[in-house]
Amino acid sequence: MTFERKNVRNMVGYIPGEQPGSSDFIKLNTNENPFAPGPAVQEALAAINVDNLRRYPQPTALELRTSIAAQHTIGKENIIVTNGGDELLRLAISTFVETDEAIAVAEPTYTLYEVLAQAHGCNYIRFTLNEDWSLPVNFAKSLNNSNVKMCLLPNPHAPSGTLMPVKELAAIASEFNGILLIDEAYVDFIDPDLNHDCIKLIKQFDNILLLRTFSKGYSLAGLRIAYGIGSLSLINPMQSKTKDSYNIDFIAQKLAQAALEDQDYARKTWDFVRSQRAMLKDALADLGLSSVDSQSNFLLVNVPELINAEKLYKSLKQHGILVRHFQQAGQENFVRITVGNTDENQLLLKTLKLLLEKT
Amino acid sequence: MTFERKNVRNMVGYIPGEQPGSSDFIKLNTNENPFAPGPAVQEALAAINVDNLRRYPQPTALELRTSIAAQHTIGKENIIVTNGGDELLRLAISTFVETDEAIAVAEPTYTLYEVLAQAHGCNYIRFTLNEDWSLPVNFAKSLNNSNVKMCLLPNPHAPSGTLMPVKELAAIASEFNGILLIDEAYVDFIDPDLNHDCIKLIKQFDNILLLRTFSKGYSLAGLRIAYGIGSLSLINPMQSKTKDSYNIDFIAQKLAQAALEDQDYARKTWDFVRSQRAMLKDALADLGLSSVDSQSNFLLVNVPELINAEKLYKSLKQHGILVRHFQQAGQENFVRITVGNTDENQLLLKTLKLLLEKT
Repeated sequence: MTFERKNVRNMVGYIPGEQPGSSDFIKLNTNENPFAPGPAVQEALAAINVDNLRRYPQPTALELRTSIAAQHTIGKENIIVTNGGDELLRLAISTFVETDEAIAVAEPTYTLYEVLAQAHGCNYIRFTLNEDWSLPVNFAKSLNNSNVKMCLLPNPHAPSGTLMPVKELAAIASEFNGILLIDEAYVDFIDPDLNHDCIKLIKQFDNILLLRTFSKGYSLAGLRIAYGIGSLSLINPMQSKTKDSYNIDFIAQKLAQAALEDQDYARKTWDFVRSQRAMLKDALADLGLSSVDSQSNFLLVNVPELINAEKLYKSLKQHGILVRHFQQAGQENFVRITVGNTDENQLLLKTLKLLLEKT
Repeated sequence: MTFERKNVRNMVGYIPGEQPGSSDFIKLNTNENPFAPGPAVQEALAAINVDNLRRYPQPTALELRTSIAAQHTIGKENIIVTNGGDELLRLAISTFVETDEAIAVAEPTYTLYEVLAQAHGCNYIRFTLNEDWSLPVNFAKSLNNSNVKMCLLPNPHAPSGTLMPVKELAAIASEFNGILLIDEAYVDFIDPDLNHDCIKLIKQFDNILLLRTFSKGYSLAGLRIAYGIGSLSLINPMQSKTKDSYNIDFIAQKLAQAALEDQDYARKTWDFVRSQRAMLKDALADLGLSSVDSQSNFLLVNVPELINAEKLYKSLKQHGILVRHFQQAGQENFVRITVGNTDENQLLLKTLKLLLEKT
């Protein structure tokens, strides 16, 4: 007997990137930070008293939200802390989108969005990005014409790593009648010289919801901590009505706060990633592998058809290096490579050189 | 502008029991275990290496599920680990109940159930428990007649602490066409002499879903770990399709496993709670406060109208002791008191004696 809802019965779940049990692999496939969490996180962990675990945690992660608010100079009431970015995405969809309404994306994009739409049972409308990964012209108008309730845009974009400018996003939010959810999972890796800042838009537009996460920039993917930033009309219903009562555990609240408050350490890791990203991009180009300009911690690398992206992915795996190859249409000729630490990046380049010489 | 769905707009969120920031209160209001987590949990915490937090955690808590499976002698594929019992309840509803279908409860019951139904946007049907907290006759037939898709029953019951026998639950599952979700949050406090065991029903009925949690029995409310046990037809869709991709963080997986594997410590705390429960029940009766026979870690105490339950709750609070008073119809004359540690229980009794002498 099957009991599940029709939409659930008809869907296939999300397939996360490979997470091999053994540590023999060099993992450049799921965009984790190459650095471990810093000493402040280690200290916060050592300071945890298990006696505190007996009681329920603070239900809205109040202290952590206070730190986040100070960090971004916004109100803590504009912030909701979630069990990873996944929870914020799911919550936003299930709180704001009726099942006869639509979510829109511009493809290619993060494949989880479609899975979440299917699980919710709402419509899913795909627009296609231009060749240069920019949004199609009159995007907001198209969203309105299709009666879209929520549009999900990763920025920096996944899988390309490209950055949509604040001005363009503001123009969309201004014209769009629905909610613009900007998934800023990789925002920490943007070049600071660009002065990219979408948080200021929150005061201007009540229909922008930003997603931030500790998984990438703060090396805490294992802890599951993310947050949403938005107007009260977006944050309040999720905070007080639809999120699970105690969604963030005591230890995660403490460790995330420690990570956030040690900005020096975090920024050092981001600087490193940026410099290695530039090095890697040039070195790959020297090997005949061009890549898109990335503002994230990964590079989308164009693999000449003769070499074949899928074959390259498999060969690298045989050499103990995991990168990502997407089967989706339009992405067959790419591999996505996470920026690793110095040794990992050098070994990647050495191995690629070896493999390319053979072909 | 409001963006939320109609059902969300019209609902009021769940109000959890008071969790005062200061530790000046004796907290006998939210049914936490009076003991801190044991030394095994402390050791597991000390063994956590923050380097592990850089990577995503195992997405289905595989090691923890393996331990749980061994503990209950069932397959690990029959288990889903969730971010507290809240997540399992929400997941079950959103995976199996279409928005034009109904959830049923027998009232009074755990008030979160209604909030979750409202957030999902499905129908919510209330039956009324008999005076002695037992289910109405022909309950399964009534569920079928009302086309109920899922019935939620806490057992031991909240707020009464009474226990429904396995035989009665089996009879309901056998006749009922929908899913019977038995919320066993308080199962660890049942007298072992009763040999109460619903897990054996999983092999017999594909429509029973059991909820277990580490929050109460294992003193880990602060960590948010619970699990569901059921047939593959119930577990698989949640595990592979509708739960958030990485719903349980690395540390919580490790600590819950340590707690589970130290059964000696856990059982000692349960034995203590049972003996204090019996002592408390008798002592309260001596003060003229009768209570329902409880198989949980709390007592639902009948307060004579002359004393007034709400006034008693407030007076205890003034004396630094938090108990629970529910405003719901039929519960005005009760307070629910969590079994605390020896000192807490004695202070409660002393304070009650003092207050009752005054009235």
